[in-house]
Amino acid sequence: MTQLASMGGDTAADNEGGTGGETVAPEAYTLGDATGPLDPDALRRLDAWWRAANYLAVGQIYLKDNPLLREPLQAEHVKPRLLGHFGTVPGLNLVYAHANRLIRDRGLSAVFVAGPGHGGPGPNACGWIEGTYSELYSHIPRDAEGMQAFFHQFSYPGGVPSHAAPETPGSFHEGGELGYSLLHAFGAALDNPDLTVFCVVGDGEAETGPLAGSWHANKFVNPARDGAVVPVLALNEYKIANPTLLARIPQEELETLLRGYGYEPHVVAGSDPAQVHQDMAAAMEACLDGIAEIQRVARAAGGDAGPEDGRRRWPMIVMRTPKGWTCPPVVDGQQVEGTFRAHQVPLPAARTDGTHRAVLEQWLRSYRPEELFDEDGAPVAELLEQNPEGDARMSANPVANGGLLLRDLRLPDWRDFGVEVGTPGSTDHEATRVLGRWLAEVTRLNPTSFLTFAPDELASNRLQDILDVTGRSWQAEIGEFDERLDRQGRVVEVLSEHMCQGLLEGYLLTGRHGLFTCYEAFIHIVDSMFNQHAKWLQASAEVDWRRPIASFNYLLSSHVWRQDHNGFTHQDPGFLDVVLNKKPEIVRVYLPPDANTLLSTYDHCLRSRHYVNVVVAGKQPQADWLGVQDAALHCARGAGIWEWAGHGDETGSDPDVVLACAGEIPTLETLAAAALLRERLPDLRVRVVNVVDLMRLLPESEHPHGLPDSEFDTLFTADKPVIFAFHGYPWLVHRLTYRRTNHAQLHVRGYKENGTTTTPFDMVMLNDLDRYHLVVDVIDRVPALRSRAAGLRQEMVDTRLRARTWTREHGVDLPEVAEWTWPGATGQA
Amino acid sequence: MTQLASMGGDTAADNEGGTGGETVAPEAYTLGDATGPLDPDALRRLDAWWRAANYLAVGQIYLKDNPLLREPLQAEHVKPRLLGHFGTVPGLNLVYAHANRLIRDRGLSAVFVAGPGHGGPGPNACGWIEGTYSELYSHIPRDAEGMQAFFHQFSYPGGVPSHAAPETPGSFHEGGELGYSLLHAFGAALDNPDLTVFCVVGDGEAETGPLAGSWHANKFVNPARDGAVVPVLALNEYKIANPTLLARIPQEELETLLRGYGYEPHVVAGSDPAQVHQDMAAAMEACLDGIAEIQRVARAAGGDAGPEDGRRRWPMIVMRTPKGWTCPPVVDGQQVEGTFRAHQVPLPAARTDGTHRAVLEQWLRSYRPEELFDEDGAPVAELLEQNPEGDARMSANPVANGGLLLRDLRLPDWRDFGVEVGTPGSTDHEATRVLGRWLAEVTRLNPTSFLTFAPDELASNRLQDILDVTGRSWQAEIGEFDERLDRQGRVVEVLSEHMCQGLLEGYLLTGRHGLFTCYEAFIHIVDSMFNQHAKWLQASAEVDWRRPIASFNYLLSSHVWRQDHNGFTHQDPGFLDVVLNKKPEIVRVYLPPDANTLLSTYDHCLRSRHYVNVVVAGKQPQADWLGVQDAALHCARGAGIWEWAGHGDETGSDPDVVLACAGEIPTLETLAAAALLRERLPDLRVRVVNVVDLMRLLPESEHPHGLPDSEFDTLFTADKPVIFAFHGYPWLVHRLTYRRTNHAQLHVRGYKENGTTTTPFDMVMLNDLDRYHLVVDVIDRVPALRSRAAGLRQEMVDTRLRARTWTREHGVDLPEVAEWTWPGATGQA
Repeated sequence: MTQLASMGGDTAADNEGGTGGETVAPEAYTLGDATGPLDPDALRRLDAWWRAANYLAVGQIYLKDNPLLREPLQAEHVKPRLLGHFGTVPGLNLVYAHANRLIRDRGLSAVFVAGPGHGGPGPNACGWIEGTYSELYSHIPRDAEGMQAFFHQFSYPGGVPSHAAPETPGSFHEGGELGYSLLHAFGAALDNPDLTVFCVVGDGEAETGPLAGSWHANKFVNPARDGAVVPVLALNEYKIANPTLLARIPQEELETLLRGYGYEPHVVAGSDPAQVHQDMAAAMEACLDGIAEIQRVARAAGGDAGPEDGRRRWPMIVMRTPKGWTCPPVVDGQQVEGTFRAHQVPLPAARTDGTHRAVLEQWLRSYRPEELFDEDGAPVAELLEQNPEGDARMSANPVANGGLLLRDLRLPDWRDFGVEVGTPGSTDHEATRVLGRWLAEVTRLNPTSFLTFAPDELASNRLQDILDVTGRSWQAEIGEFDERLDRQGRVVEVLSEHMCQGLLEGYLLTGRHGLFTCYEAFIHIVDSMFNQHAKWLQASAEVDWRRPIASFNYLLSSHVWRQDHNGFTHQDPGFLDVVLNKKPEIVRVYLPPDANTLLSTYDHCLRSRHYVNVVVAGKQPQADWLGVQDAALHCARGAGIWEWAGHGDETGSDPDVVLACAGEIPTLETLAAAALLRERLPDLRVRVVNVVDLMRLLPESEHPHGLPDSEFDTLFTADKPVIFAFHGYPWLVHRLTYRRTNHAQLHVRGYKENGTTTTPFDMVMLNDLDRYHLVVDVIDRVPALRSRAAGLRQEMVDTRLRARTWTREHGVDLPEVAEWTWPGATGQA
Repeated sequence: MTQLASMGGDTAADNEGGTGGETVAPEAYTLGDATGPLDPDALRRLDAWWRAANYLAVGQIYLKDNPLLREPLQAEHVKPRLLGHFGTVPGLNLVYAHANRLIRDRGLSAVFVAGPGHGGPGPNACGWIEGTYSELYSHIPRDAEGMQAFFHQFSYPGGVPSHAAPETPGSFHEGGELGYSLLHAFGAALDNPDLTVFCVVGDGEAETGPLAGSWHANKFVNPARDGAVVPVLALNEYKIANPTLLARIPQEELETLLRGYGYEPHVVAGSDPAQVHQDMAAAMEACLDGIAEIQRVARAAGGDAGPEDGRRRWPMIVMRTPKGWTCPPVVDGQQVEGTFRAHQVPLPAARTDGTHRAVLEQWLRSYRPEELFDEDGAPVAELLEQNPEGDARMSANPVANGGLLLRDLRLPDWRDFGVEVGTPGSTDHEATRVLGRWLAEVTRLNPTSFLTFAPDELASNRLQDILDVTGRSWQAEIGEFDERLDRQGRVVEVLSEHMCQGLLEGYLLTGRHGLFTCYEAFIHIVDSMFNQHAKWLQASAEVDWRRPIASFNYLLSSHVWRQDHNGFTHQDPGFLDVVLNKKPEIVRVYLPPDANTLLSTYDHCLRSRHYVNVVVAGKQPQADWLGVQDAALHCARGAGIWEWAGHGDETGSDPDVVLACAGEIPTLETLAAAALLRERLPDLRVRVVNVVDLMRLLPESEHPHGLPDSEFDTLFTADKPVIFAFHGYPWLVHRLTYRRTNHAQLHVRGYKENGTTTTPFDMVMLNDLDRYHLVVDVIDRVPALRSRAAGLRQEMVDTRLRARTWTREHGVDLPEVAEWTWPGATGQA
């Protein structure tokens, strides 16, 4: 063991050192003996592959030059800022190397998910050894020059991130925000019967709620229909600054927990590489044998077999190895290897501090690079022979670049599912129920590439007609009174928005299609998952070799305006605000006002690529406004004048006032206000504008769907009052339109957190979005009306009071409101 | 058994019936024999209390009149809209009744958490029997008249919500969004050594990620210091439309899972009331005995004892009883009791359908109300005798109305912890580190009423000086290299934002203080929890008998502008947008630019009540701008002119341009731009305005902190260009200011999802928020400069290109940027 006195040093990293104590290089690496499935030669070869990956990981973090250490390490060879994380990398590389052995031995199609945060150097290194990195990035060949470029680019301006990311070959999971690795892994496995997903779960990540809940995703895997996930819990015991919970409960309790989740854990523990290799090889084989047996039994029994037809305790691995394994054990007098101090950069002063730099050099040399890379700097033949071939390399498996495998959906013509509309407003439908009939047919026509996810809200959101053609996927026990559970079901229902979101992400990222339906308020539960998925879409669109994937489609119902049962806690339209913070190229928001516009919108969404589409729609019986052809045209425009609903607007000159609306209930109230105005102020020229595609409001320069100013002015006028009834928080409309010509005349009514109520009309009244208040708004804002319509104004105010009193007394809305229907076409039509 | 042919009926509820089959009333209720801890009389009495609560729950859902069924039930006695949920209620009432027995027997101080969704009728009923309801609501006395009002108000316009809510006596947990019951329960137990929290966890709720992770909260309970939680997993097997996962795994696997979480489950299963009562009584006693023993051992060993000093498998209960237990078993030919169809309203047509109504009457009478309520309609003496007394009633325990118990913090004078500032910008500090020294003293001075929560980010966010006075609470094993773990620690670190948020909510709701520090981007993980807590604050402020609680304080650091290590996934300032959607009375957002302003801000936050305070601050070494006195004044103003930073603005007339800024990095770049302008365009009159309190930007009419228009105009001028460098998404500033006089001249630079980078200055350049671009913005917007300063403009553009190239080549920022310091006072000063 070499020990050098530390010279202290400036710690750029988050960990703080600088106690002035000794700094110790790793012992010269020698592989001991251990017995197990690997013969000595196989053990040696596999260990060499692992050492190479570790060497390449350390190189990425530290080196900008002298990548093969062919000259003594100098300060100028070390990067000026050391940004990266080593702690989790050796464990990732270990799993990757052992997975490769099994891929070759068993002819597996496999992908790799790196769950622990900031493990980027590991998968990067593996992809470089496998040659994929060089195939995808010509400027990073698999030789000395390429290695230097490969090291230089890591966590460097203009380079690649410090965690697995869209830039990482073979990755479909980003190691930024933690908690979603298992969900992505299971989502990838669905409908991929021949796929194996090796999913490393960090023990830090395992503390998050989403990860803790997602162990149960195994209850949605049909071993006949789906592939398998091999979870590897990487128990390196530490996070940034703390031990992990799962490392500090008794080992027996941990195994009990995992059995309770439905797994059979195989434990690999230690720090002696030879023994760990043998144990990992044995555990991997046991897992794949166990999976093969589960699949064999299930497939022999047919796709409808359930757990009653054979034990299904899915195998997994608990890997308890040191954090920062193989790094300098002690730095500046403090234990680093095997502790939280190995999380980030173990030798933070390697550029400026001679001791740190000397230890870095010893550390790098401990991997014996001269045995691993040939004269040109390429991996030696012994390493290359261990790589799987072609697409079998996890870094090259097309499953991880899902757009390569994506095929368009077979979509029935939505027009055939539309509702007949004669006079606008003369019939009622539950919009989402109409959509459900079309989605049922989509599901039937795409039996292996389309899934619907819901947190126990499919039927509540009125999509239950899908259950006419399929059931809910369920691989646990089935009780006497359970309904529409189905071993081969194409709907996944679990009361976890995180699971719905994460499984669908995994399914889409690997080249399939789907949608997630949820109560509007509770979609906020996955705000951060949406954020991360949108960032993935944005970043991957800039990676040349990535292909676009299917859009992530939300269908939000049980929306803010109809929470009669549920009240204030279920009222929140703010997901739209979160969504609109992301890159405009990625996000789309639609507010179809009725059944046919919802159908047309969703047809568009299921055809689109690489977006996040958010659609908010009603589920209660509500008036149909547009027939199929009108709906198609209106949705294509995204926003338009409803001439039949206004009046006096056909003269070619501007109206006196514009009533704009977006969303189911705001449209209803706006039309009711328009009808009132037509009846009571027949000479007032009223224009009704409905907005389906919210992005139309943005300036052309800000969003691809943005209306040019001239077109916006044509719709909304340049100077007339606009009363805008909006589904969400009112300021969102201002945010979208503040640069428009007529913004000063825009008055928005929307939801303002005004508490709870239990009748529909009371709800809109509470937020001043009701028909009577909209009429008041018009009177207050059209100067000519102020004195003329003072009587009508007072009547409106009184009617509201009467409506409020009525609900308090009768528990239902005023009959003239509840039974209101659109009075039919205007006299001019 | 009575069977009546159904007449079908209109189903207002979400469940769909209407098959036209038979509808069956519950059998006449008789209590059988069963042996157990309860003697026959005690069994009978306890069952009567439970029946009374169930009767009162059914009454709330259905009846608007005839509450005691003293006349035959008529249609007009039934509410016109049936809104509410019965399925989970009998289980809640069972636990409540049995808890009461133990409260009386053992003199417990206890509170009750109703985790399952929409259980409102249960806790309401219990509170009414206990008399608390009538004490708090005079118009709802404990008699027949009161019972009618009590029934009428439930889920009725102007009444109370359908789930436990601020209006519910004894509740500090809202049953709206699911997943947080255990967290609130454990948060309440911390620092409450004599408290027992009975926490019913729904098996639907148990599927959520946050709940799944929160079982591990037991690792933060010190049995000497803290109270105890008795989790009761209510396994009624169904959600809205599906069975629950935990009900469909083998019972042994479920118990294994719970043991893995560190609990000892006691199973109570069945549908025979007598047997279930006996089993529940036995299980409750076993739990409380187990807890008492754990506490006895730990308290004897002293507060520093750990699990090594005695087994700590916390007891809990698994309660497997039918959903909708005691309701009509079959409705319209479909099994209801014991299935998902009992979730909401079992007889949806009780008003309009004679059969449903008749069965409703039989159902209500099956509880034998004539035995339960006396002539006046009050609970009979036998029931009243079972109520605990006074504050021992869970509906009256002041712990659940935390404001009653809240005492102000003992706060050291923050000025004593401030940094010396001579010339602005002449010294550097890590702002959060300075705050940490003060927080350490706050922690020391308030040893039982102040906790800090962090998802493994305390030290990373530079608050580690708190660890000089306390450690991290940790009740699991402690490893050799673990640091600052402490059985009595006052910092709770767990890598779950959900747990941090939920535990702190529970701690605050029960009358204590604290803060949650988190990376800025990942606070989105708890968007929906924030939403729900803000709604609780808003709604509870309108409940007369609720007292204000301490504010929820966020400290967000590792913010969007400094993610050198982490990149794009760690960049998201959008939590501010989410927060500002809530009621203005509740939310506050602060962006202190340096150490002293952060101190002053946080002192204010810890003194405030009933708000959510969001503070975003820097953790990297950064210039100090304001001394202690200036910081105090500036923070009191919330926004103000920094005269020393501008120039030519002391003439009394308006400047030529305003440079506004909010946030650490935007302030730095703005000052650098101001310095450049002063040097290069000395006759340009430049005003620098810094905003700490973001709510100052809002109109006075919209927020209590909003500046009057006249004051706003005084700061920002009525017509001069304003270049606003903002910490978050730029449109947020527009949203706040779109009604201001000078809005058309406002140009905002902020974060626009423009990808990743690894140097600080590259990051601001990528978003056009850097000093050079700000100068370009000024030149482009001050007409007089366009030709005059064309050379300077080109120089700025060129300098940016040079800075970009430099970072690509050197991996660090241009020295003139990295080493820039404020050039000192202006000539005029």
